[in-house]
Order: sequence, then C-alpha cells, then structure tokens
Amino acid sequence: MLNKQQILKKRPIGFPETDTWALESKEVPELKEGEVLIEQHYVSLDPAMRGWLNDVKSYIPPVGIGDVMRAGSVGKVIKANNHPFLKEGQSVSGGGGVQQYVVTDGKGWFPVDTNIAPMPLYLSTLGMPGMTAYFGILEVGKLKEGDTVLVSGAAGAVGSVVGQVAKIKGCRVVGIAGGPKKCKYLLDELGFDAAIDYKNEDVKAGIKEHFPKGIDVYFDNVGGEILDAALTRLRRHARIVICGAISQYNNKTEVKGPSNYLSLLVNRASMTGMVVFDYADRYQEAAMQMGQWIMQGKLKSREDIYDGIENFYPTFERLFNGDKMGKLVLKVKDE
Amino acid sequence: MLNKQQILKKRPIGFPETDTWALESKEVPELKEGEVLIEQHYVSLDPAMRGWLNDVKSYIPPVGIGDVMRAGSVGKVIKANNHPFLKEGQSVSGGGGVQQYVVTDGKGWFPVDTNIAPMPLYLSTLGMPGMTAYFGILEVGKLKEGDTVLVSGAAGAVGSVVGQVAKIKGCRVVGIAGGPKKCKYLLDELGFDAAIDYKNEDVKAGIKEHFPKGIDVYFDNVGGEILDAALTRLRRHARIVICGAISQYNNKTEVKGPSNYLSLLVNRASMTGMVVFDYADRYQEAAMQMGQWIMQGKLKSREDIYDGIENFYPTFERLFNGDKMGKLVLKVKDE
Repeated sequence: MLNKQQILKKRPIGFPETDTWALESKEVPELKEGEVLIEQHYVSLDPAMRGWLNDVKSYIPPVGIGDVMRAGSVGKVIKANNHPFLKEGQSVSGGGGVQQYVVTDGKGWFPVDTNIAPMPLYLSTLGMPGMTAYFGILEVGKLKEGDTVLVSGAAGAVGSVVGQVAKIKGCRVVGIAGGPKKCKYLLDELGFDAAIDYKNEDVKAGIKEHFPKGIDVYFDNVGGEILDAALTRLRRHARIVICGAISQYNNKTEVKGPSNYLSLLVNRASMTGMVVFDYADRYQEAAMQMGQWIMQGKLKSREDIYDGIENFYPTFERLFNGDKMGKLVLKVKDE
Repeated sequence: MLNKQQILKKRPIGFPETDTWALESKEVPELKEGEVLIEQHYVSLDPAMRGWLNDVKSYIPPVGIGDVMRAGSVGKVIKANNHPFLKEGQSVSGGGGVQQYVVTDGKGWFPVDTNIAPMPLYLSTLGMPGMTAYFGILEVGKLKEGDTVLVSGAAGAVGSVVGQVAKIKGCRVVGIAGGPKKCKYLLDELGFDAAIDYKNEDVKAGIKEHFPKGIDVYFDNVGGEILDAALTRLRRHARIVICGAISQYNNKTEVKGPSNYLSLLVNRASMTGMVVFDYADRYQEAAMQMGQWIMQGKLKSREDIYDGIENFYPTFERLFNGDKMGKLVLKVKDE
C-alpha cells in the first residue's frame, strides 16, 4: 500500500515557494508488535508551520530536509498489532504529519470521540488552537471579569476562541481581522462587541475609539504594526499575551520589534510568551470545559476545509494571504 | 533672600542643548501657617529626567515650561511655621527640584537620619534608585536563589544595587557597564561574578560566554541593542524587568523596539515594566533592609558629587555620556 507524503525539500527564505515541498509516495511498512496503522482523514494547517521550517533553536526542532512535513492530524486506526490502548476502528488525533498513513507505537496519539464533535473540530477548538486560546487568555492573560480585551487574528482558529472565552467570562471584547466578511463574522456569529478591519481601517484610531479607558489584555497573534498600535493604548497593569507574530513569519529581513515597548514601563504592563505544550497535563480539563460550551451553544467554531493531499501548498498559502475563514484544514481522505 | 533655580525654558528634541534650562533667581516667599523653608544641599540627577521633558502622556506629567526642573533632593529645614511634623534643623528628603530653597507644606517630604547615612545616600541606595532596584529585582523580577542575573547600566545607581541585592540573595550576577574602570568596580568592589564592557567587548558574545545555560532575570536599564542581545539568551520562564532605556531617551527618531522579542514566546518568558512609585507604601521596609545591609558591609554605594547649582547642565550631560561613577548628585550647598 502506498502512502502519499508531503516531504520538505528545502529551507525557504521568506515565503515558501512551490518547490519547498514535494509530494512523494512510499510503501507503508509492516506493523511491528505494539504498533498501529492510522489512516489519516484531516491534517491541520497552522501558521506555526512556517517557524518549523527554519533551522534555528526554538521550542521544537525544525522539520528535517527529507522528512514528512509536521502537522497535527485526525484519523482512524485501521490496523492494530497488539497495541495496549488503541484499537481498530478507533478515531484518534496526534501529530501525524502531511501524509495519508502513519505507522506508530501510539506515542502522542489519543482517542477522540466523534459522537461529541466531528473530526475537524479536534484540530480546531478541541485541538491545539483551542488549547492555545484557552490557556493563553485565562492563564497567561490572567483574564478577569470586566476586563477589556483586544485580540488580533480574531477570526482565526485561536483568536476566535480567545474572544469567545473572554465573552463567556464577562469581558468586553474587540477583535482585529482582515476584511468586512471576517469582521461581520466576529460581530454576528461570535458575539464580539466590536471589530476592527485592519485592511480597511486605521487600526490605531480603531483601538482608541473602542478602548476609551485602555486595554487590559491584548492577545497578539500577529506582531508588527498592530502590536505597536496596541501598546499605545494599554491600561495600567495590562497583560499582553505573545502567542504568535504571523505578520513577521515570512520576513526576509529582521523581525520588526515593538517600538512602543516602553509603554510597558509607563503602564506597569507585561508581555509574556506562551507555548501550548506547557499545558499538556491540563488539555483534558480544557477540552471538557470547551466541549460543554460548544454543546451549550456558547462557543462556536468554524473550519475551512480543503480537499486533497496534493493541494497542501495552495492551502498553506491561505494561512498567510488571509483567504480562509476559521480553522484551516486539509482533508486527505473522506470519512 | 534669593533662590537660584534651574528653569525649564524649552522642550528639547534629541539631546538637550545648553539653553534648555536657564539659571534664574527669585525671592523666597514668606512662610504661611503650616509651611516650612528647606535649604537644599544635594539634588539628584537621574536618567528619568530626560523623559520628564517630553510633552507626552507618561507615568508623571512633564515639567512645565517656566517651571523649576523636577528633581529629588535632600536638605535641611531652616524655618518652620507651626508645621505638624517637620521641625527646624531637621534633615529631609523630597522632590525639591533643581533650586536652592523650597517652601512647602511638607507633602512628599520625609525626615532622614544623617546619623545612619550621609545625606547623598538618601538620593542613591536609600532613595529612589535604591527603591527601584530593590522592588524591581525582587518583586517584578521575582528573583529566586540560584537564578542567573544580568543587569545593564550595572555601575549606575540602580544597576549597582540590583546586582548586589541579587548577590545577597544567592544568585550569579553579571553586569554590563561602559569601560574598564566601571567593570573593575563591579568585580572588585561590588562582588559581581563577571562584567561585560559594552564599549570594548562584543556584548552578545559576552552574554553567551557568561550564561552557558541562559539568563533567568535580565534587569534592563538601557534598551536598544543590549536588550536585543539579552533576548537571544533567555532561559525558560525568564523575566525581563523594564526599568529604563537610557540608550533611547535622546533619540530623534523612533525608539528601537526589541527585534528579538519572539524569544519571549519560545522561552515562555516575560517582559514587565515598572515604576517605583507603586511601592511607596513599602519604601520604609526596603530602606530598613538596605540600611542593615549597608551597615553589615554587604551593600556598597558610590556617589559621584559635583558642585554648584550653576553646573546643572554639564552635570546632566554626564548622565548620558557615561562620565560618572555611581549615583550622580549635584551639591547646591555645603552641609
């Protein structure tokens, strides 16, 4: 049986080009004792992928040249050779990479219940982006009832959950997103209090208008000019959560540092980085809480699903050109 | 009786020029009921003064054009008109500004004991710089025994106390200062473990050498390239205390933001601003602790004292050109 895989071919400088990856086929190996064969259905596409291509010291080693592209995934166990806890027919989620099949001893994989939520949701709100949002806003952002909250990348997989969790917790929430369609989604579907369209509005003026008394928590997914604009409007003891910097990931030059960082001093504010893996022992707690909110209709999720492992590159481009709504997912096999 | 005063004449762009202030004389007014007349002996010169000249929203309003230049000071009460707690002959410290005499109702002034320490020490280790260092490293920096600590502006009034307090608390301490004389002072007098001479060494290489396992706490007084270098070498959960950014205060262009701020994300680290006034209700506690350390010979202090209110400007220049050792003080009257 052949396994189609997206293989990393070279390290990009700036935005990855079409030949960064190549689709290759490889025979699926025989299962050893204690291994399972997983047929993957959905692969997660995340901005963090861009960072994994750089050969630098980071929170995780880079993807090796010649290796399958790293990605979160959901699939089904189709064969098990005396595995201690995974069984044939079971739906599972893990870091399966951009490929059709995975042979594994099960490390890093866990069962998911498709009666509670469809598979793709385990890559969005009930997966890493949801966990990132949950622990980022509650733990790192130290969210309190009544806080004024600004979130960038607000229509994305992380930002949309950040904003909704903050609303559930009794905060005033303003989102920054690109284009009227996404802003309408924030207001009409997700219940944000206000939205700023960075493609068509002056972000700094928008922040000033919507935060007359300043920002308590800014959840930053984008960096660059928007981070600098948020810094001009901090309230005393404000917290900035540094979750990502999508505006800077494809830079060919130096990252733009926040020129207004001395606002941290004036406002006795903090800027704290986070990596979701640190909360691994509490994922279950977060998933249960968010599952409950989803069932109560308080937490909405949208997945933007594209089809076919051969379409990995054009789908990856959507991560950065803004042409997506919600969590970007690549379907590699019908359920 | 005439009172010589340094009056702010204009708002500088970049480094203040000689005509930023002018020395003027004004008759000392009669005391009203409940007021005291203070004869000032020492005036504090601090990098923060540069910020007070800018007409921007900050943690304190700017000094007004035509007003006496703001400054901390120490002096003696030479006349009291039924003041509730200040008496003639008492030594006091407060925000007297750059002038010879102050008439005040006593708000913001407190008695100092010149038997415990000489007057200038109440502008350095037992004054605002000492308080800034104490609360900055212990509270904002959340210092723990065994931490590796980097401090910039290490030979200055704040930095020298930061490093010594960290040594007292059982940390490994490396200081960054300008020139071999200051570095020798850190090592030989203050007991730092290592020193990096930013004028003659590669700071990034020095940090790498002295922090093989990374930095737990970086206390930043300078900003700019040095902050960026420190960011490249953070340990997981590192804390950066943003106390100042002397390298940026006289910029005519935009402040240089820290390009390497995404190291906060990778290392789950934080960058937090501080203003010492927030700890006003605990100054006494800190002064008692530091007074004890001074008497035990564990905490050393050096004041660099220049003479004459007319020499305010050339003394002010020393704040930024590095030509000083320890706390910069202007004597306006012999004791």
